[in-house]
Amino acid sequence: MANVRTPAFNLNEWVQIRALEVDTALDRFLPKATAKPATIHKAMRYSIFAGGKRMRPALLLAAAEACGGTIEPALPLACAVECIHTYSLIHDDLPAMDNDDFRRGKPTNHKVFGEGIAVLAGDALLTQAFEIAALSDDWPRYSHREIVLEIARASGSLQLIAGQVADLEGEGRDLSVPELKYIHERKTSALLCASVRLGGMSANCTPAQLKALTTFGYNVGLAFQVIDDILDVTQTSEKLGKTAGKDVAAQKATYPRLVGLEKSRKIAAQLTARAFDALKPFKRRAPALEALAHYLLKREN
Amino acid sequence: MANVRTPAFNLNEWVQIRALEVDTALDRFLPKATAKPATIHKAMRYSIFAGGKRMRPALLLAAAEACGGTIEPALPLACAVECIHTYSLIHDDLPAMDNDDFRRGKPTNHKVFGEGIAVLAGDALLTQAFEIAALSDDWPRYSHREIVLEIARASGSLQLIAGQVADLEGEGRDLSVPELKYIHERKTSALLCASVRLGGMSANCTPAQLKALTTFGYNVGLAFQVIDDILDVTQTSEKLGKTAGKDVAAQKATYPRLVGLEKSRKIAAQLTARAFDALKPFKRRAPALEALAHYLLKREN
Repeated sequence: MANVRTPAFNLNEWVQIRALEVDTALDRFLPKATAKPATIHKAMRYSIFAGGKRMRPALLLAAAEACGGTIEPALPLACAVECIHTYSLIHDDLPAMDNDDFRRGKPTNHKVFGEGIAVLAGDALLTQAFEIAALSDDWPRYSHREIVLEIARASGSLQLIAGQVADLEGEGRDLSVPELKYIHERKTSALLCASVRLGGMSANCTPAQLKALTTFGYNVGLAFQVIDDILDVTQTSEKLGKTAGKDVAAQKATYPRLVGLEKSRKIAAQLTARAFDALKPFKRRAPALEALAHYLLKREN
Repeated sequence: MANVRTPAFNLNEWVQIRALEVDTALDRFLPKATAKPATIHKAMRYSIFAGGKRMRPALLLAAAEACGGTIEPALPLACAVECIHTYSLIHDDLPAMDNDDFRRGKPTNHKVFGEGIAVLAGDALLTQAFEIAALSDDWPRYSHREIVLEIARASGSLQLIAGQVADLEGEGRDLSVPELKYIHERKTSALLCASVRLGGMSANCTPAQLKALTTFGYNVGLAFQVIDDILDVTQTSEKLGKTAGKDVAAQKATYPRLVGLEKSRKIAAQLTARAFDALKPFKRRAPALEALAHYLLKREN
């Protein structure tokens, strides 16, 4: 094997196959759209199958592969983090929060099903995430207890929800850079970092591998968000596939607004470098994770 | 021991001691009110410590004792179900749902903290429930996996949330008795039944004991709700400690409304009898569970 060169990795193909596997598993894990009461299951499925990029599941599965694992034990956890992510979007979009009418070009959950059902659909997906995680097989090195704790902590009031609260409370006032970083760490990095960690855990990764994945996930999450802020300023709506300049129009605190475009690019480059550095221990055995990081951090939309 | 008569059981004292233990544990499990961001932790604590009766924790702890268990391994699970119950109340009270301004004589969460924070405080308590359950010790007979599944299923879109959806969708139209029973089974019985089951599981109960607790919990839950409906019609607001006749005023489907007061009493008596029957296998070793059931099912407010 030592002399066999790794063939060029086809990320597009890998992502398509993985997304299909995740979608099939989600379809299997979620109650049918006809299950009584149908409204709630239709609402859950509406947002789960609304064309999300499945970025967290992809990172989770890529991390599993990087640690020598297979897809099967990782797949339920990939579905669990996607349920958490989707619930957080449904609740974030509510009138009492960001008040968004559209997401990924489709009407948001509460615009279709009403606010009451949207709150409950989010609740149901959050609960479903833990059910799915509990359903999955045992992993020799990591217990269900550790897996559930990982998901609960990343999604809880000190992480994901803390980010949303700080975001809500930061509206309409000038944030400092540490405050903005605090929000990004929690709103984006926490669940992203948990995703790559869960992927590693599903593959019985070593403590050293888990540490490397943690550094990777944390920095990818932060870099991803800074790049998002930059793209909102520099790209056209057409290229982004969503309304560009939305942050500026909403006077939202962003890196370009706080430190300027040039310094924002420098910060993004630093975070990106740290993320790639963290992958070094995996050498050439993590093609999917490397290619994904490259795609997320060098993207133009 | 065989000749020692069980002394008269003092339920009041038992409930007071247990409620104090649950409150102390909840205070320990929840992030401090000063933990950043303080708003969310204040909001979580506001509703958790708003004077709830701790009925589910009490039933859980009483079931643990009935199965020969101690309080310690049951306490985290008692806190977890109380977090689930409290989250469901916060979300139920939202303007998009029941739109209640007061609960237990205090302004509801969203009246104090605003709707956005109330949604997030509910989300945080739901997530916290799973964290607390995962934190607890191992039980020889039941795994963390079974414990998490028990909580997730009772709270999910086919049970607790299903009940809330059916309740929302039933507003303003006449329900049939089976439809009303469907709502009660899910809104009340599911979590109540899970509570007594979790208590048994924490005490490494036998499968036969678990079956008895399931029958007990299911029937107590249904009976409790029918009795609630009856008391709303027959008691004064003063005696209830909340607005009496509220169901009638809201033209809400209730047992007295659908089948009349006399038949409602018959149904309540039947369910109560089934609940007490289910306790027979515990004989005289379940004084707290028996006394609690007696209190809940023979109550006048």
